[in-house]
Amino acid sequence: MARALVILGFACVLAAAEAPDWHNAGIVDTRHSPYAKLHPVPVRAVHMREGFWTSRMRVNVERSIPTMLDLLEQHGVVDNFRRLAGTKNVPRRGPLFTDSDLYKWIEAAAFVLQSEDRPRLRAAIGRLTDEILAAQEPSGYLNTYWSGERASQRFTEQTRGHELYCLGHLLQGAIAYYRATGDRKLLDGGMRFADYLAANFGPQKRPALTGHPELEMALVELYRTTGQRRYLDFAGYLLSGVERQRLHLTDRDVQYMFSGIPFTSRTRLEGHAVRAMYASCGATDYYLETGDPAYRHTLETLWQDLVRHKMYITGGVGSRAAGEAIGEDYELPNAQAYGESCAAIGNMMWNWRLLLASGEARFADVMERALYNGINSGMSLDGTLYCYRNPLESNREQIRNPWYDTTCCPPNLERTLAQLPGYLYSTGARGVYVNFYHGSELDWRLENGTPVKLSQQTEYPWKGSVRLSVSPAKAEEFSLFVRIPRWSAATRVSVNGSAAGGQPVPGEYLELRRVWRPGDIVTLAFDVRPRLIQSNPLVRENTGRVAVQRGPLIYCLEQADLASAPPLFDVALTTGPGAGFREEDRPDFLGGVVLLRHPGMASAKPLSDDPLYDLLGNLGDNPWKPLELTFIPYYAWANRGPDRMEVWVPYAPKP
Amino acid sequence: MARALVILGFACVLAAAEAPDWHNAGIVDTRHSPYAKLHPVPVRAVHMREGFWTSRMRVNVERSIPTMLDLLEQHGVVDNFRRLAGTKNVPRRGPLFTDSDLYKWIEAAAFVLQSEDRPRLRAAIGRLTDEILAAQEPSGYLNTYWSGERASQRFTEQTRGHELYCLGHLLQGAIAYYRATGDRKLLDGGMRFADYLAANFGPQKRPALTGHPELEMALVELYRTTGQRRYLDFAGYLLSGVERQRLHLTDRDVQYMFSGIPFTSRTRLEGHAVRAMYASCGATDYYLETGDPAYRHTLETLWQDLVRHKMYITGGVGSRAAGEAIGEDYELPNAQAYGESCAAIGNMMWNWRLLLASGEARFADVMERALYNGINSGMSLDGTLYCYRNPLESNREQIRNPWYDTTCCPPNLERTLAQLPGYLYSTGARGVYVNFYHGSELDWRLENGTPVKLSQQTEYPWKGSVRLSVSPAKAEEFSLFVRIPRWSAATRVSVNGSAAGGQPVPGEYLELRRVWRPGDIVTLAFDVRPRLIQSNPLVRENTGRVAVQRGPLIYCLEQADLASAPPLFDVALTTGPGAGFREEDRPDFLGGVVLLRHPGMASAKPLSDDPLYDLLGNLGDNPWKPLELTFIPYYAWANRGPDRMEVWVPYAPKP
Repeated sequence: MARALVILGFACVLAAAEAPDWHNAGIVDTRHSPYAKLHPVPVRAVHMREGFWTSRMRVNVERSIPTMLDLLEQHGVVDNFRRLAGTKNVPRRGPLFTDSDLYKWIEAAAFVLQSEDRPRLRAAIGRLTDEILAAQEPSGYLNTYWSGERASQRFTEQTRGHELYCLGHLLQGAIAYYRATGDRKLLDGGMRFADYLAANFGPQKRPALTGHPELEMALVELYRTTGQRRYLDFAGYLLSGVERQRLHLTDRDVQYMFSGIPFTSRTRLEGHAVRAMYASCGATDYYLETGDPAYRHTLETLWQDLVRHKMYITGGVGSRAAGEAIGEDYELPNAQAYGESCAAIGNMMWNWRLLLASGEARFADVMERALYNGINSGMSLDGTLYCYRNPLESNREQIRNPWYDTTCCPPNLERTLAQLPGYLYSTGARGVYVNFYHGSELDWRLENGTPVKLSQQTEYPWKGSVRLSVSPAKAEEFSLFVRIPRWSAATRVSVNGSAAGGQPVPGEYLELRRVWRPGDIVTLAFDVRPRLIQSNPLVRENTGRVAVQRGPLIYCLEQADLASAPPLFDVALTTGPGAGFREEDRPDFLGGVVLLRHPGMASAKPLSDDPLYDLLGNLGDNPWKPLELTFIPYYAWANRGPDRMEVWVPYAPKP
Repeated sequence: MARALVILGFACVLAAAEAPDWHNAGIVDTRHSPYAKLHPVPVRAVHMREGFWTSRMRVNVERSIPTMLDLLEQHGVVDNFRRLAGTKNVPRRGPLFTDSDLYKWIEAAAFVLQSEDRPRLRAAIGRLTDEILAAQEPSGYLNTYWSGERASQRFTEQTRGHELYCLGHLLQGAIAYYRATGDRKLLDGGMRFADYLAANFGPQKRPALTGHPELEMALVELYRTTGQRRYLDFAGYLLSGVERQRLHLTDRDVQYMFSGIPFTSRTRLEGHAVRAMYASCGATDYYLETGDPAYRHTLETLWQDLVRHKMYITGGVGSRAAGEAIGEDYELPNAQAYGESCAAIGNMMWNWRLLLASGEARFADVMERALYNGINSGMSLDGTLYCYRNPLESNREQIRNPWYDTTCCPPNLERTLAQLPGYLYSTGARGVYVNFYHGSELDWRLENGTPVKLSQQTEYPWKGSVRLSVSPAKAEEFSLFVRIPRWSAATRVSVNGSAAGGQPVPGEYLELRRVWRPGDIVTLAFDVRPRLIQSNPLVRENTGRVAVQRGPLIYCLEQADLASAPPLFDVALTTGPGAGFREEDRPDFLGGVVLLRHPGMASAKPLSDDPLYDLLGNLGDNPWKPLELTFIPYYAWANRGPDRMEVWVPYAPKP
């Protein structure tokens, strides 16, 4: 036994020596992943210039993150740890997964610290780390719910218990903090719990299950962080779904949890939307390390299912309130859309991993769609109110709230905003990838080690022009991959004033390969003219309706912007010759937006005066009167109080 | 105290003496209700001729009712009583409301016995009565769930406990049996529990709440049956919703339960659909006895909300699986429709009471809509499979099942079918009302006592012609009110071969007042030509779609009937000149139906090949090929196995 410990200790030291350095890791660290085509740059390598996201990020750091910690304190989430540590004698509060909310908050704050030092945030995490670890048992077990009289039920209710889920978030928070500061304390605590799991659970031991997938991706990241293979293997065990019999899982269980059967046996997205997205993240991470073709095949099948049948135009996922679930193919109701913020974030996280695995821009397109719309809508412009659901139509419901008892979404939004710089650029074997557009400076290096700086100037997404200054430390041949968004029908690309790179293909990266010299200038001109989008006719609710998209932004109508005041649902957009958009730059409005005006019309009498059913021809013959419609970006809705809103607007040819 | 008891006892005797005779009571007994305009005839006064419903009723008596008792036995529902009585040592099984399922089965069987003597059914009820009453406590309390170790929690969880709900069904079953046989045994048992409630609960006593409304209407019926005012008063107390504070009810509670606040404070239907319908039944019953104008006003408001905003074209109610709930105005999804069979039945029960209160045919129209469609769909043609949900679109889900753990719907369907003869006719001060059309013989009397026989010959709903022979015992002036269904655009009415009664108004009763002589013949010709129906544009899912209605029947498309085999959701109905219906009489098919054929078209390539979103104009330009669509009655769907189905069919003008 003594000898085994020595060997284990030696292995740890060895692995730690091999482990990648914390300072250079990105949002996920695929630098050593054998099946990664792209490698993220560290968050700190990107400095954001003033622009679309910086105002959101500033609000995030200055309002959202501090006030969320106050709320977590007020609702007893931190006290739950103090209670176990014996420093506070209070009852446990909140649902069984509250620990994860605090961990996710730590992750958000840690990603801020990856961009810039904020002593108060750093001190807060240091203090929280001590309070969390004081509640950890000598075995490594750590969960404030399954303690005391519930300790004997640990791991007996894995379909709902969230023990592994909370550990997953602990690890992600700890890794983010480690990558911000090099401080291993919380990470070591997380590893102790992970080691406890690996030692006691598995095929020949007790059965384990992620009732809510999340730990899978955290364990792969822990493997990347520590080099310890057992974490990757345990992630593989969780994804293998071999414990169905031992855990007596029903068909409904494995469908709802997106767990409990082999991940590679899945052919469709279903069940709880966040679970499905997180499981797919973990499976992609696992693929990135193992290259298992069965995973690659399943991931492609599920991704096709997502984008062909189950994704809202906002990048949201999850049609049903019942079970917070993904619906059938083409089941994409608007007012009833669940579209949990966490699911849109999970969608972005999954597509980020698919992008790293493939280098294919179609995944970045989905990320952009989710980020600018279904995620961005989740936090109010002032950063203190959050959407749990993100419907595409609303009849004045109170959609934005400061707190939810299940408050998974707010810190999830906060960590996503804090990560943003790290998504903009990646590297690959042939050069540098520009994944997303925002004013920024990249200070990093090619994969052969040559330092390179990129300077990006743009007012994207409001304007379609981007100016990139490319400055390698020395003249050198490599490729600059610039992503041509799927929505940009006509893109112009030039290098130092001359057209370059051949015909840009929407939805692909354009490779600009040449000997780059310091100060070379790339200019991109994307086509951000507003467009009318329609749905596949199989989406029932969108028949006869159009959505408005401008660049990556989906727009919507809100009652407050209707000039005369018919009920919002009584208006239609007028199509046909001469019925085009008029853009209006409004830096003073809703945090600064481009408004879109379009001819429309309204029923002269309220449609609600008509009966519910009538003979064909007896309804809808009301006279219509023209009016101008004003569209605002979807993400900005419900920032003037609850209001009627719709994304998919009925349309009719101009009379 | 002794004196008070004596007075109370005296009042009881007096009231009992005044109580109406059991043999002449209808489905509900409004003969002595001061605010009833119509009075049901006893079920036994109507003999059904062969026709649309008799085949359903035969299956109900011969297959559904016997097999359902077997299933209730198999699932331990009866054993739950034996367990308490000490005759069987088994654990309690099933959800906490299983008692009500047995009571509802008894009610179904008892209504059969109101039509005809069936010794085996009568014996079964007798036996079950003994087993049920053997489980009753001396106090009168009776519930198999809240017993043993749970006895101490009685009435502490009234929002979910279903104690009052089960009593309501016990009373309804007992009353139906009493009216079938005169046997008071089960009724006396139910009264003991009701008396226990009345003695211990109320404003100055312990607080009571119908977490699931149902007891209200049962108590009013018990008052009608016994003449005991305390039952009516207790129903009024339950409807008064005064216990919100004492029971700490939340906003969500009172919304979901449709209980817990004054019924008369309600302005919209919301929450759990069955609860809302049953509460409205109880409130209407209460109005029928008290005439309280606040109830009348609220009932009218809620009814308008139902028919203008919240009722499916099938008469179904309840849009959402989450909470089995009524949705917002115009929230009427098709595939996701909940449309619980019990809610459609509740809708019919409520409208029956409104019809009795008003004599207005609009309520009978809703009853007919629900009965022929959203209720009739709930039981398979062979009588052994039941729908819990009744969606208006399906993608091959397994919708019909022999058993549900929450098996409220099957016995509810069974009692409704068994009641049917009792709905056809009513009496009022001026004469006889023909509410519904079916071959039948009525042998009853005018309200002045003159015996009258009606003989109705018709193949309704397949054919629109009805022949009524009117035979009072002696020539006498009175009115025959014949209901002109709302859907019959052009109705012809004659008496003894001559046009009579003036212009029939769809959706109203036509009063035929004259001196009727034995053998007078009334003929009615309703317009059962098939029609295309559209929705108010505010119903999102039905934009660009039509439903097909023929007489009272809503039709649908089922994949099995598509001649060539495109996916059902890729077809559209062709409108325009020359695109009409062709009817086909098929006595051999689906139990005997009139099929409807109509020109349509199908996308030449699967719509699912197209992307989910694209620029307006890029989608839907597929070539279409003509095909003939075959519509079957909605009630008959899913009788050939799970299949694709839709009620609301896209339509396009003939190219």
